[in-house]
Amino acid sequence: MNSTAIQDFQKSPLQGVRGLDVCLTPSLIPLYNVKDYIVVVIDIFRATSSICYGIENGAEAIIPVSEVEECAAYREKGAGYLLAAERDGKVVDGFDFGNSPFSYTPEKVSGKTVVLTTTNGTHALHLSRSAKRIVIGSFLNLTSLCNWLKTQQENILLVCAGWKNNFNLEDTLFAGAVIEQLKSGNYKLDDPAIAANDLFQLGKNDIPAYLNKTSHGERLKKLGIEKDIAFCLQVDLTTAIPVLDGDRLVKL
Amino acid sequence: MNSTAIQDFQKSPLQGVRGLDVCLTPSLIPLYNVKDYIVVVIDIFRATSSICYGIENGAEAIIPVSEVEECAAYREKGAGYLLAAERDGKVVDGFDFGNSPFSYTPEKVSGKTVVLTTTNGTHALHLSRSAKRIVIGSFLNLTSLCNWLKTQQENILLVCAGWKNNFNLEDTLFAGAVIEQLKSGNYKLDDPAIAANDLFQLGKNDIPAYLNKTSHGERLKKLGIEKDIAFCLQVDLTTAIPVLDGDRLVKL
Repeated sequence: MNSTAIQDFQKSPLQGVRGLDVCLTPSLIPLYNVKDYIVVVIDIFRATSSICYGIENGAEAIIPVSEVEECAAYREKGAGYLLAAERDGKVVDGFDFGNSPFSYTPEKVSGKTVVLTTTNGTHALHLSRSAKRIVIGSFLNLTSLCNWLKTQQENILLVCAGWKNNFNLEDTLFAGAVIEQLKSGNYKLDDPAIAANDLFQLGKNDIPAYLNKTSHGERLKKLGIEKDIAFCLQVDLTTAIPVLDGDRLVKL
Repeated sequence: MNSTAIQDFQKSPLQGVRGLDVCLTPSLIPLYNVKDYIVVVIDIFRATSSICYGIENGAEAIIPVSEVEECAAYREKGAGYLLAAERDGKVVDGFDFGNSPFSYTPEKVSGKTVVLTTTNGTHALHLSRSAKRIVIGSFLNLTSLCNWLKTQQENILLVCAGWKNNFNLEDTLFAGAVIEQLKSGNYKLDDPAIAANDLFQLGKNDIPAYLNKTSHGERLKKLGIEKDIAFCLQVDLTTAIPVLDGDRLVKL
Protein backbone atom coordinates (compact mmCIF):
# COMPACT_ATOMS: atom_id res chain seq x y z
CA MET A 1 0.00 0.00 0.00
CA ASN A 2 2.96 2.36 -0.39
CA SER A 3 1.22 3.86 -3.37
CA THR A 4 -1.98 4.55 -1.46
CA ALA A 5 -2.50 8.28 -1.06
CA ILE A 6 -3.71 9.39 2.35
CA GLN A 7 -6.72 10.98 0.64
CA ASP A 8 -7.97 7.53 -0.41
CA PHE A 9 -8.94 6.97 3.20
CA GLN A 10 -10.94 10.18 3.67
CA LYS A 11 -13.72 9.88 6.15
CA SER A 12 -17.15 11.45 6.01
CA PRO A 13 -19.56 11.28 8.93
CA LEU A 14 -22.38 8.76 8.82
CA GLN A 15 -25.67 9.85 7.30
CA GLY A 16 -28.40 10.64 9.83
CA VAL A 17 -26.36 10.69 12.98
CA ARG A 18 -24.11 13.67 13.57
CA GLY A 19 -20.43 12.83 13.73
CA LEU A 20 -18.37 14.03 16.68
CA ASP A 21 -14.82 13.29 15.58
CA VAL A 22 -11.38 14.21 16.84
CA CYS A 23 -8.44 14.82 14.52
CA LEU A 24 -5.47 14.24 16.82
CA THR A 25 -2.87 16.15 14.80
CA PRO A 26 -2.76 18.42 11.73
CA SER A 27 -1.01 15.56 9.88
CA LEU A 28 -4.28 13.63 9.99
CA ILE A 29 -6.54 16.39 8.64
CA PRO A 30 -6.36 14.93 5.08
CA LEU A 31 -8.13 11.82 6.47
CA TYR A 32 -11.30 13.86 6.99
CA ASN A 33 -13.63 15.44 4.47
CA VAL A 34 -13.29 18.74 6.29
CA LYS A 35 -16.04 20.35 4.20
CA ASP A 36 -18.61 18.13 5.93
CA TYR A 37 -17.87 19.54 9.38
CA ILE A 38 -17.87 22.52 11.67
CA VAL A 39 -14.23 22.53 12.78
CA VAL A 40 -13.06 23.58 16.23
CA VAL A 41 -9.34 24.41 16.20
CA ILE A 42 -7.55 23.68 19.49
CA ASP A 43 -4.09 24.84 20.51
CA ILE A 44 -4.32 25.16 24.27
CA PHE A 45 -0.66 26.18 24.87
CA ARG A 46 -1.15 28.92 23.77
CA ALA A 47 -2.53 30.14 20.45
CA THR A 48 -6.23 29.40 20.75
CA SER A 49 -6.33 30.40 24.43
CA SER A 50 -4.83 33.76 23.51
CA ILE A 51 -7.19 34.17 20.54
CA CYS A 52 -10.22 33.55 22.78
CA TYR A 53 -8.87 36.03 25.33
CA GLY A 54 -8.06 38.65 22.69
CA ILE A 55 -11.47 38.49 21.01
CA GLU A 56 -13.14 38.62 24.43
CA ASN A 57 -11.08 41.71 25.21
CA GLY A 58 -12.24 43.65 22.19
CA ALA A 59 -9.71 42.88 19.48
CA GLU A 60 -11.49 43.83 16.26
CA ALA A 61 -10.02 40.80 14.52
CA ILE A 62 -7.15 38.34 14.67
CA ILE A 63 -5.67 37.35 11.33
CA PRO A 64 -3.94 33.98 11.39
CA VAL A 65 -1.14 33.64 8.82
CA SER A 66 1.12 30.70 8.08
CA GLU A 67 4.52 32.29 7.69
CA VAL A 68 6.53 34.80 9.70
CA GLU A 69 7.14 36.70 6.45
CA GLU A 70 3.39 37.05 5.80
CA CYS A 71 3.01 38.44 9.28
CA ALA A 72 5.87 40.93 8.78
CA ALA A 73 4.30 42.12 5.53
CA TYR A 74 1.46 43.70 7.52
CA ARG A 75 3.96 46.13 9.04
CA GLU A 76 3.70 48.20 5.88
CA LYS A 77 -0.09 48.30 5.97
CA GLY A 78 -0.19 50.79 8.84
CA ALA A 79 -0.17 51.26 12.58
CA GLY A 80 -3.54 49.55 13.10
CA TYR A 81 -1.95 46.12 13.11
CA LEU A 82 -0.26 44.41 16.01
CA LEU A 83 2.15 41.77 14.80
CA ALA A 84 2.43 38.54 16.76
CA ALA A 85 4.89 35.84 15.77
CA GLU A 86 5.95 32.79 17.74
CA ARG A 87 8.12 29.84 16.79
CA ASP A 88 8.92 26.95 19.10
CA GLY A 89 7.29 28.77 21.99
CA LYS A 90 9.29 31.99 21.69
CA VAL A 91 8.53 35.48 20.32
CA VAL A 92 10.31 35.98 17.00
CA ASP A 93 12.81 38.88 17.10
CA GLY A 94 11.37 42.15 15.86
CA PHE A 95 7.69 41.36 16.52
CA ASP A 96 5.31 43.08 18.94
CA PHE A 97 4.58 39.89 20.81
CA GLY A 98 4.00 36.15 20.47
CA ASN A 99 1.10 34.16 21.81
CA SER A 100 1.23 34.71 25.54
CA PRO A 101 -2.32 35.41 26.69
CA PHE A 102 -0.97 38.29 28.79
CA SER A 103 -0.31 40.13 25.53
CA TYR A 104 -4.02 40.02 24.70
CA THR A 105 -5.38 42.25 27.48
CA PRO A 106 -8.00 44.95 26.77
CA GLU A 107 -5.34 47.68 27.07
CA LYS A 108 -3.26 46.10 24.36
CA VAL A 109 -5.76 44.71 21.84
CA SER A 110 -9.06 46.59 22.19
CA GLY A 111 -10.05 47.95 18.79
CA LYS A 112 -6.90 46.55 17.19
CA THR A 113 -6.32 43.89 14.57
CA VAL A 114 -3.69 41.32 15.52
CA VAL A 115 -1.80 39.42 12.82
CA LEU A 116 -0.67 36.13 14.32
CA THR A 117 1.56 33.28 13.27
CA THR A 118 2.38 30.40 15.63
CA THR A 119 4.11 27.04 15.37
CA ASN A 120 1.10 24.78 15.52
CA GLY A 121 -2.18 26.67 15.83
CA THR A 122 -2.26 28.66 12.61
CA HIS A 123 -1.02 25.58 10.74
CA ALA A 124 -4.09 23.60 11.88
CA LEU A 125 -6.34 26.53 11.01
CA HIS A 126 -5.05 26.81 7.47
CA LEU A 127 -5.37 23.09 6.83
CA SER A 128 -9.03 23.28 7.96
CA ARG A 129 -10.03 26.08 5.61
CA SER A 130 -12.58 24.11 3.61
CA ALA A 131 -14.78 23.47 6.67
CA LYS A 132 -18.41 24.64 6.85
CA ARG A 133 -17.31 26.91 9.64
CA ILE A 134 -14.19 27.25 11.76
CA VAL A 135 -14.38 28.29 15.39
CA ILE A 136 -11.73 28.53 18.07
CA GLY A 137 -11.78 26.57 21.31
CA SER A 138 -9.88 26.69 24.59
CA PHE A 139 -10.61 25.98 28.23
CA LEU A 140 -11.26 29.73 28.55
CA ASN A 141 -14.46 29.56 26.45
CA LEU A 142 -15.33 25.86 26.92
CA THR A 143 -18.97 26.02 28.03
CA SER A 144 -19.90 28.94 25.81
CA LEU A 145 -18.44 27.06 22.82
CA CYS A 146 -20.24 23.83 23.72
CA ASN A 147 -23.57 25.58 24.18
CA TRP A 148 -23.24 27.01 20.70
CA LEU A 149 -22.14 23.68 19.19
CA LYS A 150 -25.24 22.04 20.67
CA THR A 151 -27.44 24.40 18.64
CA GLN A 152 -25.75 23.46 15.35
CA GLN A 153 -27.21 20.62 13.31
CA GLU A 154 -23.83 19.76 11.87
CA ASN A 155 -21.05 17.24 12.24
CA ILE A 156 -18.25 18.45 14.46
CA LEU A 157 -14.53 17.87 14.00
CA LEU A 158 -12.28 18.85 16.87
CA VAL A 159 -8.84 19.53 15.36
CA CYS A 160 -5.93 19.34 17.79
CA ALA A 161 -3.00 21.49 16.69
CA GLY A 162 -0.65 19.19 18.59
CA TRP A 163 3.09 19.72 18.81
CA LYS A 164 5.12 19.74 15.61
CA ASN A 165 2.44 17.76 13.79
CA ASN A 166 2.31 15.06 16.46
CA PHE A 167 -0.20 14.27 19.23
CA ASN A 168 -0.14 16.21 22.46
CA LEU A 169 -2.05 15.61 25.65
CA GLU A 170 -3.35 19.11 26.41
CA ASP A 171 -5.18 19.58 23.11
CA THR A 172 -6.57 16.05 23.26
CA LEU A 173 -7.72 16.56 26.84
CA PHE A 174 -9.59 19.69 25.80
CA ALA A 175 -11.23 17.78 22.95
CA GLY A 176 -12.30 15.27 25.61
CA ALA A 177 -13.78 18.12 27.68
CA VAL A 178 -15.89 19.28 24.71
CA ILE A 179 -17.10 15.72 24.12
CA GLU A 180 -18.04 15.47 27.80
CA GLN A 181 -20.49 18.36 27.35
CA LEU A 182 -21.86 17.15 24.02
CA LYS A 183 -21.96 13.38 24.28
CA SER A 184 -25.47 13.11 25.71
CA GLY A 185 -26.67 14.40 22.31
CA ASN A 186 -27.20 12.21 19.26
CA TYR A 187 -23.58 11.99 18.14
CA LYS A 188 -21.49 9.13 16.82
CA LEU A 189 -17.96 9.29 18.26
CA ASP A 190 -14.94 8.02 16.34
CA ASP A 191 -12.11 6.15 18.08
CA PRO A 192 -9.99 9.26 18.69
CA ALA A 193 -13.04 10.95 20.24
CA ILE A 194 -13.62 7.97 22.54
CA ALA A 195 -9.97 8.05 23.59
CA ALA A 196 -9.97 11.82 24.14
CA ASN A 197 -13.02 11.62 26.36
CA ASP A 198 -11.55 8.69 28.31
CA LEU A 199 -8.34 10.67 28.91
CA PHE A 200 -10.49 13.59 30.09
CA GLN A 201 -12.08 11.29 32.68
CA LEU A 202 -8.60 10.61 34.05
CA GLY A 203 -7.58 14.26 34.07
CA LYS A 204 -10.72 16.22 34.80
CA ASN A 205 -10.41 16.46 38.58
CA ASP A 206 -7.06 18.22 38.36
CA ILE A 207 -6.18 19.19 34.81
CA PRO A 208 -2.96 21.09 35.69
CA ALA A 209 -1.65 18.10 37.66
CA TYR A 210 -2.56 15.70 34.88
CA LEU A 211 -0.82 17.79 32.24
CA ASN A 212 2.20 18.39 34.42
CA LYS A 213 3.56 15.01 33.39
CA THR A 214 3.56 15.73 29.66
CA SER A 215 6.62 16.42 27.58
CA HIS A 216 5.12 19.63 26.23
CA GLY A 217 4.44 20.90 29.74
CA GLU A 218 8.09 20.34 30.57
CA ARG A 219 9.16 22.09 27.40
CA LEU A 220 7.00 25.12 28.15
CA LYS A 221 8.25 25.22 31.71
CA LYS A 222 11.78 25.43 30.41
CA LEU A 223 10.69 28.48 28.43
CA GLY A 224 9.62 30.11 31.69
CA ILE A 225 5.96 30.42 30.89
CA GLU A 226 4.38 28.59 33.81
CA LYS A 227 2.11 31.60 34.38
CA ASP A 228 0.81 31.30 30.83
CA ILE A 229 0.10 27.61 31.35
CA ALA A 230 -1.89 28.23 34.53
CA PHE A 231 -3.79 31.01 32.75
CA CYS A 232 -4.68 28.82 29.76
CA LEU A 233 -6.13 26.10 32.01
CA GLN A 234 -8.78 28.35 33.56
CA VAL A 235 -12.22 27.07 32.62
CA ASP A 236 -14.95 29.49 31.42
CA LEU A 237 -13.12 32.75 32.03
CA THR A 238 -14.56 34.07 28.74
CA THR A 239 -17.70 33.69 26.61
CA ALA A 240 -16.67 35.00 23.18
CA ILE A 241 -16.41 32.44 20.37
CA PRO A 242 -13.90 33.44 17.69
CA VAL A 243 -15.05 32.41 14.22
CA LEU A 244 -13.19 32.58 10.92
CA ASP A 245 -14.75 35.14 8.56
CA GLY A 246 -12.77 35.21 5.33
CA ASP A 247 -9.20 35.41 6.54
CA ARG A 248 -10.03 37.05 9.87
CA LEU A 249 -11.06 35.62 13.21
CA VAL A 250 -13.85 37.75 14.65
CA LYS A 251 -16.43 37.49 17.42
CA LEU A 252 -19.32 35.17 16.50
CA MET B 1 3.70 26.77 7.64
CA ASN B 2 1.99 25.21 4.65
CA SER B 3 5.39 24.82 3.09
CA THR B 4 6.83 22.96 6.08
CA ALA B 5 7.53 19.36 5.16
CA ILE B 6 6.53 16.82 7.79
CA GLN B 7 10.15 15.63 7.84
CA ASP B 8 11.27 19.00 9.27
CA PHE B 9 9.71 17.92 12.53
CA GLN B 10 11.42 14.53 12.79
CA LYS B 11 12.03 13.41 16.28
CA SER B 12 15.02 11.56 17.63
CA PRO B 13 15.11 10.20 21.17
CA LEU B 14 17.03 12.12 23.82
CA GLN B 15 20.67 11.21 24.34
CA GLY B 16 21.39 9.09 27.44
CA VAL B 17 17.85 8.09 28.30
CA ARG B 18 16.17 5.48 26.14
CA GLY B 19 13.09 6.72 24.35
CA LEU B 20 9.86 4.75 24.62
CA ASP B 21 7.64 6.37 22.02
CA VAL B 22 4.32 5.54 20.42
CA CYS B 23 3.52 6.35 16.81
CA LEU B 24 -0.28 6.39 16.80
CA THR B 25 -0.80 5.84 13.07
CA PRO B 26 1.30 5.06 9.98
CA SER B 27 0.65 8.64 8.81
CA LEU B 28 2.85 9.86 11.66
CA ILE B 29 5.85 7.58 10.99
CA PRO B 30 7.64 10.36 9.04
CA LEU B 31 7.73 12.36 12.31
CA TYR B 32 10.19 9.84 13.78
CA ASN B 33 13.78 9.10 12.83
CA VAL B 34 12.89 5.43 12.54
CA LYS B 35 16.55 4.41 12.14
CA ASP B 36 17.17 5.36 15.78
CA TYR B 37 14.70 2.80 17.10
CA ILE B 38 13.74 -0.81 17.47
CA VAL B 39 10.23 -0.75 16.01
CA VAL B 40 7.37 -2.92 17.23
CA VAL B 41 4.61 -3.11 14.64
CA ILE B 42 1.12 -3.53 16.08
CA ASP B 43 -2.04 -4.49 14.21
CA ILE B 44 -4.12 -6.33 16.78
CA PHE B 45 -7.19 -6.97 14.57
CA ARG B 46 -5.69 -9.06 13.02
CA ALA B 47 -2.45 -9.02 11.07
CA THR B 48 0.14 -9.00 13.83
CA SER B 49 -1.86 -11.41 16.00
CA SER B 50 -1.97 -13.87 13.11
CA ILE B 51 1.73 -13.37 12.35
CA CYS B 52 2.65 -14.17 15.97
CA TYR B 53 0.42 -17.23 15.90
CA GLY B 54 1.76 -18.41 12.53
CA ILE B 55 5.43 -18.10 13.54
CA GLU B 56 4.65 -19.82 16.84
CA ASN B 57 3.03 -22.64 14.87
CA GLY B 58 6.07 -23.33 12.74
CA ALA B 59 5.64 -21.18 9.66
CA GLU B 60 9.11 -20.99 8.16
CA ALA B 61 8.59 -17.34 7.28
CA ILE B 62 5.89 -14.77 6.64
CA ILE B 63 6.62 -12.32 3.84
CA PRO B 64 4.73 -9.03 4.18
CA VAL B 65 4.08 -7.29 0.87
CA SER B 66 2.34 -4.01 0.15
CA GLU B 67 0.14 -4.80 -2.80
CA VAL B 68 -2.27 -7.59 -3.66
CA GLU B 69 -0.49 -7.89 -7.01
CA GLU B 70 2.89 -8.49 -5.31
CA CYS B 71 1.26 -11.23 -3.28
CA ALA B 72 -0.30 -12.85 -6.36
CA ALA B 73 3.09 -12.85 -8.11
CA TYR B 74 4.32 -15.49 -5.65
CA ARG B 75 1.81 -17.95 -7.12
CA GLU B 76 4.25 -18.56 -9.94
CA LYS B 77 7.17 -19.23 -7.62
CA GLY B 78 5.90 -22.65 -6.58
CA ALA B 79 3.67 -24.58 -4.24
CA GLY B 80 5.71 -23.74 -1.14
CA TYR B 81 3.95 -20.42 -0.74
CA LEU B 82 0.61 -19.80 0.92
CA LEU B 83 -0.93 -16.60 -0.32
CA ALA B 84 -2.82 -14.42 2.15
CA ALA B 85 -4.54 -11.22 1.06
CA GLU B 86 -7.00 -9.11 2.99
CA ARG B 87 -8.57 -5.75 2.22
CA ASP B 88 -11.03 -3.95 4.49
CA GLY B 89 -11.24 -6.99 6.72
CA LYS B 90 -12.14 -9.50 3.98
CA VAL B 91 -10.20 -12.20 2.10
CA VAL B 92 -9.50 -11.07 -1.45
CA ASP B 93 -11.07 -13.36 -4.07
CA GLY B 94 -8.72 -16.05 -5.34
CA PHE B 95 -6.37 -16.12 -2.34
CA ASP B 96 -5.71 -18.99 0.06
CA PHE B 97 -6.75 -16.96 3.08
CA GLY B 98 -6.66 -13.52 4.71
CA ASN B 99 -5.51 -12.67 8.16
CA SER B 100 -7.80 -14.65 10.42
CA PRO B 101 -5.61 -16.27 13.10
CA PHE B 102 -7.54 -19.51 12.55
CA SER B 103 -5.80 -19.78 9.17
CA TYR B 104 -2.41 -19.87 10.91
CA THR B 105 -2.71 -23.21 12.73
CA PRO B 106 0.17 -25.75 12.76
CA GLU B 107 -1.68 -27.97 10.25
CA LYS B 108 -1.89 -25.13 7.77
CA VAL B 109 1.38 -23.23 8.12
CA SER B 110 4.02 -25.53 9.62
CA GLY B 111 7.07 -25.53 7.34
CA LYS B 112 5.38 -23.17 4.90
CA THR B 113 6.12 -19.62 3.83
CA VAL B 114 3.12 -17.30 3.91
CA VAL B 115 3.01 -14.22 1.68
CA LEU B 116 0.73 -11.68 3.36
CA THR B 117 -0.80 -8.36 2.42
CA THR B 118 -3.30 -6.61 4.68
CA THR B 119 -5.01 -3.23 4.82
CA ASN B 120 -3.08 -1.67 7.66
CA GLY B 121 -0.42 -3.97 9.10
CA THR B 122 1.89 -4.49 6.14
CA HIS B 123 1.59 -0.77 5.36
CA ALA B 124 3.01 0.12 8.80
CA LEU B 125 5.73 -2.51 8.38
CA HIS B 126 6.90 -1.15 5.08
CA LEU B 127 7.01 2.43 6.33
CA SER B 128 9.19 1.28 9.26
CA ARG B 129 11.82 -0.44 7.13
CA SER B 130 14.75 1.78 8.11
CA ALA B 131 14.50 0.80 11.80
CA LYS B 132 17.41 -0.86 13.65
CA ARG B 133 15.18 -3.88 13.98
CA ILE B 134 11.50 -4.59 13.40
CA VAL B 135 9.61 -7.02 15.58
CA ILE B 136 5.94 -7.94 15.70
CA GLY B 137 3.73 -7.48 18.74
CA SER B 138 0.28 -8.64 19.77
CA PHE B 139 -1.48 -9.57 22.99
CA LEU B 140 -0.61 -13.19 22.10
CA ASN B 141 3.14 -12.65 22.66
CA LEU B 142 2.99 -9.64 25.01
CA THR B 143 5.18 -10.75 27.92
CA SER B 144 7.68 -12.62 25.78
CA LEU B 145 8.09 -9.52 23.62
CA CYS B 146 8.46 -7.20 26.63
CA ASN B 147 11.05 -9.47 28.27
CA TRP B 148 13.12 -9.31 25.10
CA LEU B 149 12.69 -5.53 24.74
CA LYS B 150 13.98 -5.10 28.31
CA THR B 151 17.27 -6.71 27.29
CA GLN B 152 17.81 -4.30 24.40
CA GLN B 153 19.77 -1.11 25.03
CA GLU B 154 17.87 0.72 22.34
CA ASN B 155 15.11 3.24 21.93
CA ILE B 156 11.75 1.67 21.25
CA LEU B 157 9.04 2.92 18.92
CA LEU B 158 5.67 1.20 19.11
CA VAL B 159 4.01 1.69 15.72
CA CYS B 160 0.24 1.31 15.68
CA ALA B 161 -1.08 0.24 12.29
CA GLY B 162 -4.39 1.88 13.09
CA TRP B 163 -7.36 1.86 10.73
CA LYS B 164 -7.00 3.46 7.31
CA ASN B 165 -4.10 5.58 8.49
CA ASN B 166 -6.01 6.92 11.49
CA PHE B 167 -5.86 6.15 15.23
CA ASN B 168 -7.59 3.09 16.63
CA LEU B 169 -8.12 2.06 20.22
CA GLU B 170 -7.05 -1.59 20.09
CA ASP B 171 -3.55 -0.94 18.77
CA THR B 172 -3.07 1.99 21.14
CA LEU B 173 -4.27 -0.10 24.08
CA PHE B 174 -1.72 -2.77 23.26
CA ALA B 175 1.02 -0.11 23.07
CA GLY B 176 -0.11 0.91 26.55
CA ALA B 177 0.19 -2.71 27.71
CA VAL B 178 3.80 -2.87 26.50
CA ILE B 179 4.59 0.41 28.27
CA GLU B 180 3.04 -0.98 31.46
CA GLN B 181 5.63 -3.78 31.47
CA LEU B 182 8.58 -1.53 30.52
CA LYS B 183 7.95 1.76 32.27
CA SER B 184 9.77 0.90 35.48
CA GLY B 185 12.98 0.94 33.38
CA ASN B 186 14.91 4.08 32.50
CA TYR B 187 12.74 5.25 29.64
CA LYS B 188 11.49 8.65 28.60
CA LEU B 189 7.87 8.45 27.37
CA ASP B 190 6.51 10.82 24.74
CA ASP B 191 2.96 12.22 24.96
CA PRO B 192 1.38 9.47 22.84
CA ALA B 193 3.07 6.87 25.07
CA ILE B 194 1.69 8.54 28.21
CA ALA B 195 -1.78 8.60 26.66
CA ALA B 196 -1.56 4.96 25.51
CA ASN B 197 -0.56 3.80 28.98
CA ASP B 198 -3.32 5.87 30.59
CA LEU B 199 -5.89 4.30 28.26
CA PHE B 200 -4.53 0.88 29.19
CA GLN B 201 -5.18 1.68 32.85
CA LEU B 202 -8.84 2.24 31.94
CA GLY B 203 -9.10 -0.92 29.88
CA LYS B 204 -6.81 -3.45 31.50
CA ASN B 205 -9.30 -5.13 33.79
CA ASP B 206 -11.52 -6.15 30.90
CA ILE B 207 -9.92 -5.47 27.54
CA PRO B 208 -12.71 -7.07 25.43
CA ALA B 209 -15.36 -4.98 27.18
CA TYR B 210 -13.31 -1.81 26.80
CA LEU B 211 -12.76 -2.39 23.10
CA ASN B 212 -16.35 -3.36 22.51
CA LYS B 213 -17.28 0.30 22.33
CA THR B 214 -14.90 1.16 19.48
CA SER B 215 -15.95 1.80 15.92
CA HIS B 216 -13.47 -0.76 14.61
CA GLY B 217 -14.86 -3.43 16.92
CA GLU B 218 -18.31 -2.72 15.53
CA ARG B 219 -16.98 -2.87 11.99
CA LEU B 220 -15.29 -6.22 12.57
CA LYS B 221 -18.40 -7.57 14.23
CA LYS B 222 -20.35 -6.73 11.10
CA LEU B 223 -17.84 -8.83 9.17
CA GLY B 224 -18.74 -11.78 11.39
CA ILE B 225 -15.35 -12.26 12.94
CA GLU B 226 -16.17 -12.02 16.65
CA LYS B 227 -14.31 -15.30 17.20
CA ASP B 228 -11.18 -13.78 15.67
CA ILE B 229 -11.48 -10.76 17.95
CA ALA B 230 -11.77 -12.88 21.07
CA PHE B 231 -8.81 -14.95 19.90
CA CYS B 232 -6.62 -11.89 19.29
CA LEU B 233 -7.26 -10.57 22.80
CA GLN B 234 -5.81 -13.61 24.56
CA VAL B 235 -2.72 -12.58 26.53
CA ASP B 236 0.48 -14.65 26.39
CA LEU B 237 -0.84 -17.58 24.38
CA THR B 238 2.48 -17.66 22.49
CA THR B 239 6.16 -16.90 23.08
CA ALA B 240 7.64 -16.55 19.59
CA ILE B 241 8.77 -13.09 18.54
CA PRO B 242 8.59 -12.55 14.78
CA VAL B 243 11.47 -10.37 13.52
CA LEU B 244 12.04 -8.93 10.05
CA ASP B 245 15.08 -10.51 8.36
CA GLY B 246 15.51 -8.99 4.92
CA ASP B 247 12.01 -9.14 3.51
CA ARG B 248 10.87 -12.09 5.63
CA LEU B 249 9.43 -12.29 9.11
CA VAL B 250 11.04 -15.20 10.94
CA LYS B 251 11.32 -16.44 14.51
CA LEU B 252 13.81 -14.41 16.57
